[in-house]
Amino acid sequence: MKLTILGCYAATPRTITNPTAQVLEIRNRMFLIDCGEGTQVQLRKNKLKFSKINHIFISHLHGDHFYGLVGLISTFMLLNRQTDLHVYGPKGIKEIVLLQLRYSNSYTGYNLFFHELTATVSEVVYEDEKVVVKTIPLKHRIYTNGFLFQEKIGDRKLNVDAVQEYQIETCYFQKIKNGSDITLDDGTVISNSILTFDPIKPKSYAFCSDTMYHESIIPIIQGCDVLYHETTFLETEADKAEKTMHSTAKQAAMIANKAKVSQLILGHYSTRYANIECFKQEAELIFPNVILADDGKIFEFE
Amino acid sequence: MKLTILGCYAATPRTITNPTAQVLEIRNRMFLIDCGEGTQVQLRKNKLKFSKINHIFISHLHGDHFYGLVGLISTFMLLNRQTDLHVYGPKGIKEIVLLQLRYSNSYTGYNLFFHELTATVSEVVYEDEKVVVKTIPLKHRIYTNGFLFQEKIGDRKLNVDAVQEYQIETCYFQKIKNGSDITLDDGTVISNSILTFDPIKPKSYAFCSDTMYHESIIPIIQGCDVLYHETTFLETEADKAEKTMHSTAKQAAMIANKAKVSQLILGHYSTRYANIECFKQEAELIFPNVILADDGKIFEFE
Repeated sequence: MKLTILGCYAATPRTITNPTAQVLEIRNRMFLIDCGEGTQVQLRKNKLKFSKINHIFISHLHGDHFYGLVGLISTFMLLNRQTDLHVYGPKGIKEIVLLQLRYSNSYTGYNLFFHELTATVSEVVYEDEKVVVKTIPLKHRIYTNGFLFQEKIGDRKLNVDAVQEYQIETCYFQKIKNGSDITLDDGTVISNSILTFDPIKPKSYAFCSDTMYHESIIPIIQGCDVLYHETTFLETEADKAEKTMHSTAKQAAMIANKAKVSQLILGHYSTRYANIECFKQEAELIFPNVILADDGKIFEFE
Repeated sequence: MKLTILGCYAATPRTITNPTAQVLEIRNRMFLIDCGEGTQVQLRKNKLKFSKINHIFISHLHGDHFYGLVGLISTFMLLNRQTDLHVYGPKGIKEIVLLQLRYSNSYTGYNLFFHELTATVSEVVYEDEKVVVKTIPLKHRIYTNGFLFQEKIGDRKLNVDAVQEYQIETCYFQKIKNGSDITLDDGTVISNSILTFDPIKPKSYAFCSDTMYHESIIPIIQGCDVLYHETTFLETEADKAEKTMHSTAKQAAMIANKAKVSQLILGHYSTRYANIECFKQEAELIFPNVILADDGKIFEFE
């Protein structure tokens, strides 16, 4: 599981910081999460292949989270993309994109599917054989969802030495990986626990931006490996956080603590703060394992 | 008259090039012309004050000419702008911007005026005591206008030596600058031509992007000082130029030549060309005074 931060600053793009966008690579899928203005340039800068992005998740319709979407969709079109593209986001996103394409008399050469979200309880929005994505309903000034990306539990891992010892033929390997015991020609039953190791523990990543302190998300993200939680402000600006329905670093850490996640990534910093280290310091008073997102940073989770 | 090129490349924003946007400073007014994605960051990079932009002219509704507009309008809002903002562009631009503001539940604290254009003949879209702006109907795949910015002829310039010699009082100076003769107390009439010099020759700038070769624009831009004319392609790709309704460098030079402009600026280069010098070379075979636009370049016209 690998996370590339394309942008993690609040409100307006600047010369050195970018609005929210990140790419999660998980089980060979590449998911784009939010798409602020300039995201396509950030994708290029980080050498992420446009053609590998087939699913885009948009948290909400504030500009710093989606103004780059229509440009990316247009660029895909100019690059003669053929592969289907799926966009998951609040109701309205389809109207906004299609209105602009219509006025420019442009039609995508690829299928563009919009999955518009309206539910206020967590729901599965994407699922394949290896990954499932659920919404995390957040509390912000407009309808907003975070997204929980979960690897599914994989096959059991073959114990190569054991299968060789028992001279088991290759054609049984998938059956073994699925958990079956094996009966040898002489009638001996070899237990699956001898032939396999436990599968790799599935990982999970929760993206929560933007939201005020909102304990309802805790059962949804409970025990996840990595939580990205916004922290627009520090506690010294707690009044501003409440008014604008954002969180402080302390509040993000409280959520991480209560949800018993393994790691907390902070981001969505207000540009009023010259040094983002203070976010880490504030959060670490509550929760020990805090890392700071920053534009261009890459996190690999083993 | 000063022109700052924020972006002058066709189609898609890239790490080192930007889509169309430029700022014209003329008689202390600052006009933003087109607003591709990333324009607000380009404005910051070029240290142009957001607060001085009160009029934005959009040529057409292809993304590389206006996808940065809604972001700029939102940023003005976040910066607590109070001054009126005027946007001139094709019908549809108001619907596109307001739809996005509505979904984000955002309202500008300043008056936002849209001047939607539908005319297919040149018309005055802006006028004050010093500057007039007219449309230049272009020929492109969708409804497109260029814009002609013209300084008005100013007051005559006071001949300081002459007014001192005739001991003319200050209260008559504006009358003299307006062209009046002066009668002295002894009845002598002093001709205005003695008391003044001719006013500064008014300058004009024509912005023409995007368009195919289109001779109908010649009478509108006839004799203007500076013509910015797109040249997406070279003659070797003339078929592509015609198909996509763009121009070649040669065609831009032919327009400059026939319109007898003083200077031709080229831009809107297709990103297929690694070296833009070839555009200059091709144009100079037809028209002598060619300069190349490039992102971040500033041209001052005395």
